[in-house]
Amino acid sequence: MKKSAELYLSAREAAAELAISPATLYAYVSRGLIRSEPSPDSRSHRYRAEDIRGLKERRVPSPEPRGFRNFDADLPVMDSAIATITEQGPIYRGVNCVDLAERDTLEHTATLLWDVTDVDPFAADNCPHVSDEMRAIAEAARRAPPIDRTVAVLALASSADPGAFTRAPDGRAMVGGRILRLLVATMLNASPSAEPLHQQVARVWTPDNKHAPDLIRRALVLLADHELNASTWTARCAASTGLNLYDAVIAGLVALKGPMHGGAGVLASRLVKTMVDNDVAPVIRERVALGERFAGFGHGVYKKGDPRAMSLLEALTRAGAPRKFTKEVPERIAEATGEFVNIDYALAVLVHALRMPPGSELALFAMSRSVGWIAHASEQLQYGKLIRPRARYVGPPPGRSGTTNSL
Amino acid sequence: MKKSAELYLSAREAAAELAISPATLYAYVSRGLIRSEPSPDSRSHRYRAEDIRGLKERRVPSPEPRGFRNFDADLPVMDSAIATITEQGPIYRGVNCVDLAERDTLEHTATLLWDVTDVDPFAADNCPHVSDEMRAIAEAARRAPPIDRTVAVLALASSADPGAFTRAPDGRAMVGGRILRLLVATMLNASPSAEPLHQQVARVWTPDNKHAPDLIRRALVLLADHELNASTWTARCAASTGLNLYDAVIAGLVALKGPMHGGAGVLASRLVKTMVDNDVAPVIRERVALGERFAGFGHGVYKKGDPRAMSLLEALTRAGAPRKFTKEVPERIAEATGEFVNIDYALAVLVHALRMPPGSELALFAMSRSVGWIAHASEQLQYGKLIRPRARYVGPPPGRSGTTNSL
Repeated sequence: MKKSAELYLSAREAAAELAISPATLYAYVSRGLIRSEPSPDSRSHRYRAEDIRGLKERRVPSPEPRGFRNFDADLPVMDSAIATITEQGPIYRGVNCVDLAERDTLEHTATLLWDVTDVDPFAADNCPHVSDEMRAIAEAARRAPPIDRTVAVLALASSADPGAFTRAPDGRAMVGGRILRLLVATMLNASPSAEPLHQQVARVWTPDNKHAPDLIRRALVLLADHELNASTWTARCAASTGLNLYDAVIAGLVALKGPMHGGAGVLASRLVKTMVDNDVAPVIRERVALGERFAGFGHGVYKKGDPRAMSLLEALTRAGAPRKFTKEVPERIAEATGEFVNIDYALAVLVHALRMPPGSELALFAMSRSVGWIAHASEQLQYGKLIRPRARYVGPPPGRSGTTNSL
Repeated sequence: MKKSAELYLSAREAAAELAISPATLYAYVSRGLIRSEPSPDSRSHRYRAEDIRGLKERRVPSPEPRGFRNFDADLPVMDSAIATITEQGPIYRGVNCVDLAERDTLEHTATLLWDVTDVDPFAADNCPHVSDEMRAIAEAARRAPPIDRTVAVLALASSADPGAFTRAPDGRAMVGGRILRLLVATMLNASPSAEPLHQQVARVWTPDNKHAPDLIRRALVLLADHELNASTWTARCAASTGLNLYDAVIAGLVALKGPMHGGAGVLASRLVKTMVDNDVAPVIRERVALGERFAGFGHGVYKKGDPRAMSLLEALTRAGAPRKFTKEVPERIAEATGEFVNIDYALAVLVHALRMPPGSELALFAMSRSVGWIAHASEQLQYGKLIRPRARYVGPPPGRSGTTNSL
């Protein structure tokens, strides 16, 4: 035992060494990352210690769960092959999204995150059907915030899509393509189209800026996934009940609205507006003196600045956006607070520089992140397991009588 | 240290002994369940060992998280004072819901679960405002499934409610009352009303049965909460981003639709329909022989039968529902499978016996469970912490190039 342990590990030992589940170990074997050999007793398999060590060194380190009050040590950690967060930015199935944003589209990012090879979710004829009911709802909600309008329209969309319920991974990717086109069209108060999504957005929201399509394309690629953030996690929990993807996206959309999540972009836009007619230094000085926070700055993972934000701000600088916003404000706030720029601020500058309608930072975020929600919901549906945590009850002890006198 | 340990524990020791967080320990102290005294050095507090032991014995045992594939040991467990599940049925803030269902209303159940004492969420004048846009959406979605219509209408409801955004617990309870009335009215294709909710449902869906209001009232009370089930958990994750309660309820509604959750009621209704024109024994024999499952039977917690189901089936028997469905089918299936009846089956029998419209089992479930979603979302908003798990990345190693040839 001692001797063979130098060369080989059991499944249990290998899994423990890598801090993964046996299921993940077998997934690694099936992807050729670890060799598996029959043990001499031939009743089990053994794994080469060098493979395990090699993988351990090569592997992205498991992010340390940051504890929060009510989960204590029980914060969930879940296996996923979709994306991971590194200090160099999120990695989409092995590809750094900052590199991807140099040239790629949201559509191509979607096929990468959805792991599609045999079908084309963005074929010209894979457009969503808009029923009369959906059209009436979109019209009634025309002046509502884009996310609210989209939730209302999507609520009836699965009934209008004969292929909405499918167990086939390729079928899910095709549904994802229809959802994405429907969602973008609904947010733009337009009809679904096979035109590239960033061009649709630019044409409707900022038709006169020649840099707009490229800048919007970059933002959409950069925001498509960020691992198990709160909205993606919510979409994934909803999907675990066996939902269709339309409903999973609805769950993601409502979660994104929260001020502790996508809503932060709206606050960052306020900060940008405050700076428009004022000198930067006194505004920052006053805010720091009052202990106010700066929306769009600071990040739990990107201690030296969010690579997505830097990528987008550099592209904005090259496109001629005011240096005040792309350089001066981020530098001064970092000096004054030690907190570096994040993607919420960069998105706010994008919306300001392109004069897009109010609220479009949140809408762009939703268009893009819906790609991640669909990827995670599909992965969850593929696992087929319900996410059903338990509560540790800390309420009044059982045995109370709850009947009121009025009855 | 050794000696005083026989009489007293430190905060850390007491929390460890009860397997709770320090915050929960202080909550127990403030509710008078544990005495706290200054230590002789007077810089900290100490806790009587007998109180801790007494509480440990008295406390509902923490449910053992049942592992599922992707969480392994990391399945989340979260403190909550709202409800817990026991073999005698769910306990709503100390009150067994089966007892509560004998006489109480969903409205009273809501005030219990929402922990309301100083305001009345069901005062006659706390009715929701229905905007023109919401009315148009409800009309367009008139023939859609009730849950889809409700999601569509709720999407615009927070904009129409000036009090939708509130940080005050009492204010949240008042919002909850408006949501509940709006949700029931929308599902019934009716206008919001202060009439008791079970009477509204009975009047619209089953006007000719004198037992209907009482039976519907019972079902609504029994289903109001079931701890951190998948839809409640989804609503809670969404709420953790700082949402308003309308959006949290939308997240719960979509999650409930899944076939592994509320959707099971629809399958149970199919089972009931199959039995209507057939003898029970041969149908069961054939299904068992084919290895088919029986929707509405079996439960992870209630090994000897779901007390909620038994309560509702007994009331149905007393009201004259066919014994075939209230007695014979449950007994025969339990004999043949070892799986006992659960609330999904009882709900299907209720809908069948009262001749309510198809899909009303899921709609009743949603009306009732929205009370639990609101309770849990409010508790989560009160904690003020984001639920943002992490993923253990098992995808391709970083460094791949993702750019396609087509670009």
